[in-house]
Amino acid sequence: MKTAYQGEIGAYSEAASRALFPDAIPLPHVSFEAVFEALVSGEVDRAVVPIENSLFGSVHANYDLLCDYQVHIEAEVQLRIRHMLLALPGVPLTDIETVYSHPQALGQCRVYLREHLPHARVLPVYDTAGAARMIREQQDLKAAAIAGKNAATQYELTVLAEGIESDTHNYTRFLALARGSADEGPEPTGAAKTSLVYTLQQDVAGSLFRSLAVFALRDLSMLKIESRPLVGSPGQYRFYIDVLGARTEPVMIRALDHLTELAPFLKILGSYPIGPVLE
Amino acid sequence: MKTAYQGEIGAYSEAASRALFPDAIPLPHVSFEAVFEALVSGEVDRAVVPIENSLFGSVHANYDLLCDYQVHIEAEVQLRIRHMLLALPGVPLTDIETVYSHPQALGQCRVYLREHLPHARVLPVYDTAGAARMIREQQDLKAAAIAGKNAATQYELTVLAEGIESDTHNYTRFLALARGSADEGPEPTGAAKTSLVYTLQQDVAGSLFRSLAVFALRDLSMLKIESRPLVGSPGQYRFYIDVLGARTEPVMIRALDHLTELAPFLKILGSYPIGPVLE
Repeated sequence: MKTAYQGEIGAYSEAASRALFPDAIPLPHVSFEAVFEALVSGEVDRAVVPIENSLFGSVHANYDLLCDYQVHIEAEVQLRIRHMLLALPGVPLTDIETVYSHPQALGQCRVYLREHLPHARVLPVYDTAGAARMIREQQDLKAAAIAGKNAATQYELTVLAEGIESDTHNYTRFLALARGSADEGPEPTGAAKTSLVYTLQQDVAGSLFRSLAVFALRDLSMLKIESRPLVGSPGQYRFYIDVLGARTEPVMIRALDHLTELAPFLKILGSYPIGPVLE
Repeated sequence: MKTAYQGEIGAYSEAASRALFPDAIPLPHVSFEAVFEALVSGEVDRAVVPIENSLFGSVHANYDLLCDYQVHIEAEVQLRIRHMLLALPGVPLTDIETVYSHPQALGQCRVYLREHLPHARVLPVYDTAGAARMIREQQDLKAAAIAGKNAATQYELTVLAEGIESDTHNYTRFLALARGSADEGPEPTGAAKTSLVYTLQQDVAGSLFRSLAVFALRDLSMLKIESRPLVGSPGQYRFYIDVLGARTEPVMIRALDHLTELAPFLKILGSYPIGPVLE
């Protein structure tokens, strides 16, 4: 079995892929589009994509691809993004003159760097795993990378410090995707959620409130709600909703049927077990 | 007058800063935290930060900083993110062997690259403006960068092709920030919106629905709604709402007063004129 993910070997998406499919071979792809195409073309059996990060928001690009491609969500996992300071084996903290990482990671570890490496140059690169790879390839004895545990393993680097981010509430939610529409997926067992995307008719005041009443008046709990303005089309929105419950429960079937009365566009992205949070 | 923005010279944030404050000097900063600190310390007069992108979602990190720092939103602008293929002057498209850009930009321009540069190597770097700078610094006659117009001007590169992204609905909304709380800001004139962040009591079924009723039952239109789960605190959320209207209108004052009955935490981020969309 093979999975597709976006990013370099050692990236957080690869770790998510291994958490969701321990026995599969994760294959790196350059972009999200390439990941979806690998799935629908049959090149891989499953795809793993990030859908929201607790600090950097929803990945609308992947919501769009979920709407465009004939795929559905099969599972989810939340991964703690835990940054580490990595260097070549034997290099002490006191030798570090330069720290490489993605700008977001550098920002998140600013307090640590100011305290422990006040004189080091801080240089941004495009990817945390790429920073680790660079230090290994260039055999740089005076540099450290900020990246995840997987990158340390992949590029045989030593962990000088771990959990160095100031805000430890840094989690990314990843989805496992399979081919075919949500109807074709198996019925989830245990506690499940249903994810959907819909639009509402333009210029109807209170239409969002009414669309949420579809769930609230049936005591269905919302786990996520997000409006996304379609810029260039004033007043037009897409809504992303996660509701507690499986799509096959009678009350959910009635709620979704009710929603079709209000929503010109409605796509059920999947109904799947509530996933674990991995620290 | 000086403004602070995050990123390199030539970045889209710099363009937003110039659009919002044509006469100010925009100063680059390495991280969002540094931008906020520059503002509150008085190093700059205003800060300009991205708050949401139409493809890549809300920048939660900046919402957090808006909650933590004593600042308020004074204005907004939406900027079309328009990617261009840039090379050194005189270099024709047929000489290009390598294309550098941020992975997101490379993904967005994949169709163009496949059609016009099928044999070029595509190499990700951390920043679009950084890709442009690299080509200029290394005088690379066989490479192109995908970046914005500002980067072309800054690094004196020729535009080989423009608007090469497949999805042209790529806009980023930027906020102009000033020191002090929203109460201290001037009253907005003309069509205004009010942005707020609040939390709700845990385990109260239907509390989100009730909190939205505060606005819906007063015929106040919501321009944005987003829930953000606080991972690690199951069932706890922050909500981001933009409502049409100024905070000083009587009906808004009553609605916000009503919301304090339901929300243990409520911060008004600002009340400001609805900004233009710049193509």
